[in-house]
Amino acid sequence: MTALPYDADRLHARATEIVVATRELAALGFTPATSSNFSMRLDDRHAAITVSGRDKGCLCEDDIMVVDFDGQPVATSQRPSAETLLHTQLYKRFPDIGCVLHTHSLNQTLASRLFAGAGHVRFEDYELIKAFRGQDTHEVAMDVPVLPNNQHIPTLAAQVDALLDNPLWGYLIEGHGLYAWGADMADARRHLDAFEFLLTCELEMRKLIR
Amino acid sequence: MTALPYDADRLHARATEIVVATRELAALGFTPATSSNFSMRLDDRHAAITVSGRDKGCLCEDDIMVVDFDGQPVATSQRPSAETLLHTQLYKRFPDIGCVLHTHSLNQTLASRLFAGAGHVRFEDYELIKAFRGQDTHEVAMDVPVLPNNQHIPTLAAQVDALLDNPLWGYLIEGHGLYAWGADMADARRHLDAFEFLLTCELEMRKLIR
Amino acid sequence: MTALPYDADRLHARATEIVVATRELAALGFTPATSSNFSMRLDDRHAAITVSGRDKGCLCEDDIMVVDFDGQPVATSQRPSAETLLHTQLYKRFPDIGCVLHTHSLNQTLASRLFAGAGHVRFEDYELIKAFRGQDTHEVAMDVPVLPNNQHIPTLAAQVDALLDNPLWGYLIEGHGLYAWGADMADARRHLDAFEFLLTCELEMRKLIR
Amino acid sequence: MTALPYDADRLHARATEIVVATRELAALGFTPATSSNFSMRLDDRHAAITVSGRDKGCLCEDDIMVVDFDGQPVATSQRPSAETLLHTQLYKRFPDIGCVLHTHSLNQTLASRLFAGAGHVRFEDYELIKAFRGQDTHEVAMDVPVLPNNQHIPTLAAQVDALLDNPLWGYLIEGHGLYAWGADMADARRHLDAFEFLLTCELEMRKLIR
Repeated sequence: MTALPYDADRLHARATEIVVATRELAALGFTPATSSNFSMRLDDRHAAITVSGRDKGCLCEDDIMVVDFDGQPVATSQRPSAETLLHTQLYKRFPDIGCVLHTHSLNQTLASRLFAGAGHVRFEDYELIKAFRGQDTHEVAMDVPVLPNNQHIPTLAAQVDALLDNPLWGYLIEGHGLYAWGADMADARRHLDAFEFLLTCELEMRKLIR
Repeated sequence: MTALPYDADRLHARATEIVVATRELAALGFTPATSSNFSMRLDDRHAAITVSGRDKGCLCEDDIMVVDFDGQPVATSQRPSAETLLHTQLYKRFPDIGCVLHTHSLNQTLASRLFAGAGHVRFEDYELIKAFRGQDTHEVAMDVPVLPNNQHIPTLAAQVDALLDNPLWGYLIEGHGLYAWGADMADARRHLDAFEFLLTCELEMRKLIR
Repeated sequence: MTALPYDADRLHARATEIVVATRELAALGFTPATSSNFSMRLDDRHAAITVSGRDKGCLCEDDIMVVDFDGQPVATSQRPSAETLLHTQLYKRFPDIGCVLHTHSLNQTLASRLFAGAGHVRFEDYELIKAFRGQDTHEVAMDVPVLPNNQHIPTLAAQVDALLDNPLWGYLIEGHGLYAWGADMADARRHLDAFEFLLTCELEMRKLIR
Repeated sequence: MTALPYDADRLHARATEIVVATRELAALGFTPATSSNFSMRLDDRHAAITVSGRDKGCLCEDDIMVVDFDGQPVATSQRPSAETLLHTQLYKRFPDIGCVLHTHSLNQTLASRLFAGAGHVRFEDYELIKAFRGQDTHEVAMDVPVLPNNQHIPTLAAQVDALLDNPLWGYLIEGHGLYAWGADMADARRHLDAFEFLLTCELEMRKLIR
């Protein structure tokens, strides 16, 4: 019997955090039709991530698998999502990223289509911008990049990598959804909440200003 | 005592699945004012279906009855919905359809009215289109037919039948609601979720683009 | 010790029905800021009704009182809502009305203001119109009256009375909310659900058609 | 061992009230991304208030601390929110204010931005205006002030103080959220509910009137 290349207790702890958060996000409508995936760092070579194609509203611990930072399955016959590489590229490059959340809410999808032409959504003069790590005033503008959608994930990953030279807590993919991250689950959830809220504000303001 | 023409254990299993799904869909607001009906295939001649006119938010197993594929009640004095034929025509023609969900959400109703003139709603460039069985890229367009409403169900069924020569996972009826289906409950639910999400996207984009 | 002029067991049964329905409607956001009131017929002289000014989200049986059909409290020191007369006038005139639900949802308020000039909201070509008792086709138009708001309830009651010569299951008061009713709680709830759904459809269609 | 300068039993009672209300408001989406804070008066020198930066959806009694009316922590090493002064200035000036609720709902944020130019939002001809203490008819207009946002809280507090010469139950801060208050928790919650409902009405009417 070979030893696992990761700490099984840590996997159990992280998998539980992912299951709880996923069910909460499913209940909020962020994961329509088995979409979306969620991960947490295990160590400097492995991450725990949701298995592809499961109903996120009734996820359990068996629906979490381990991958290495090239997105390959580790010690499992389960298949990871095609988008696993978009999670692991973040863990690989930034040691202080501990959690990545990819969701498909209605307003993320709408904003990604509406602002695809501009290439970004700008948040300006919102108190809630202080929810992002490192922001301590509302008097700044913050741009969320919008990338074109692409079924070839390595291409998408390369485009994301080019954005990561500047501080960033998330990006949109056109007609697809949002990636958001943070140091741990609480941090990533707070960033996801703030993105969802501010994207919704931007969409609603467009309906209100005539 | 005559034997039942269907498997009672299978009926119990399917009825439980229908009850659970119906309560979830009712909680989402998909079944206003006792509307909507839900069915699952039992075998190559029978289906289990919700009894007409019940509050879908507190359905129980007694509210599920058996019909044959001509929409006639089997071994029961309960009355099926007038629209039963729109369920059974699918089971009769396609052996691999196992579940049919008919809902009346707000956005299904709105989209059915708004796009009745065009005769269809087009989904284009959405990642979520991959939720439909057989789609593996967002780079396709998918049309959802919109039929005129009609109190004469055989006429409506004939119009639906003419659409089924091409692959299809659902259609709208004007001012009425959506029919969606799949191989089993999970499949049909995923399709229903995806229709609801994408119809809502199309409606919201029309409010946002001025 | 004098006997009560109504059946205490029946009061208990009706009060329980009112409490359950009220909490459900509160959870749906139909009773903002302690507004709204709900009643059921006890016999040909008495009705049970919610006490004024309570938070509808945590109502209990003690928050239900008895009034006669002139709106006066019976065998209690509790104070009924000023609008009690709008409930009892329906029980007094129509022996087959068993339940009256008065709610203040956002869309009821919006529709009442938007259509106050027209004096009614018209529902046309909706399948859900069949939820109203007596309707068996979508091919009819149905008008919901909108009355001007008035703090003098007897005046409002007289205006309502003039509308009741024609079959009616509900009306709006401008900037205020909806009255809906039926033979029993299930009937009144189905009518309320249908009004809410169809009013929301009418509002959303106005946002969608440009 | 020194005695606490406040009544510990009263703190326990008020903290419980705050925890329950906060969780309810979090579930309604009023506290995105750890924002918002809530307080109750303890006596004529102290108030209980939520600790800064906690997730309001899973608050517990340990997340409530005591401050004096200059906003300074009392008998604790916990850090209060920077906005504590906007709570305590109300307790200091008005002995009959017992509860202050500061929330960041989507519609509060949208209304604060849309009406920042006008400097106020006007409520007119709404029955629900009677939810505010002292209003007994819908036939009045009520203005909710909108202040510019400012990271320097003493400046903001001074601007609020200038508004308090007239009867007031709440105000908005641009791009930020709402402050609402009352004699006790029930009173403050009813006012908050009414503000949220009426602000949403005003926003929706702008979408409906073309």
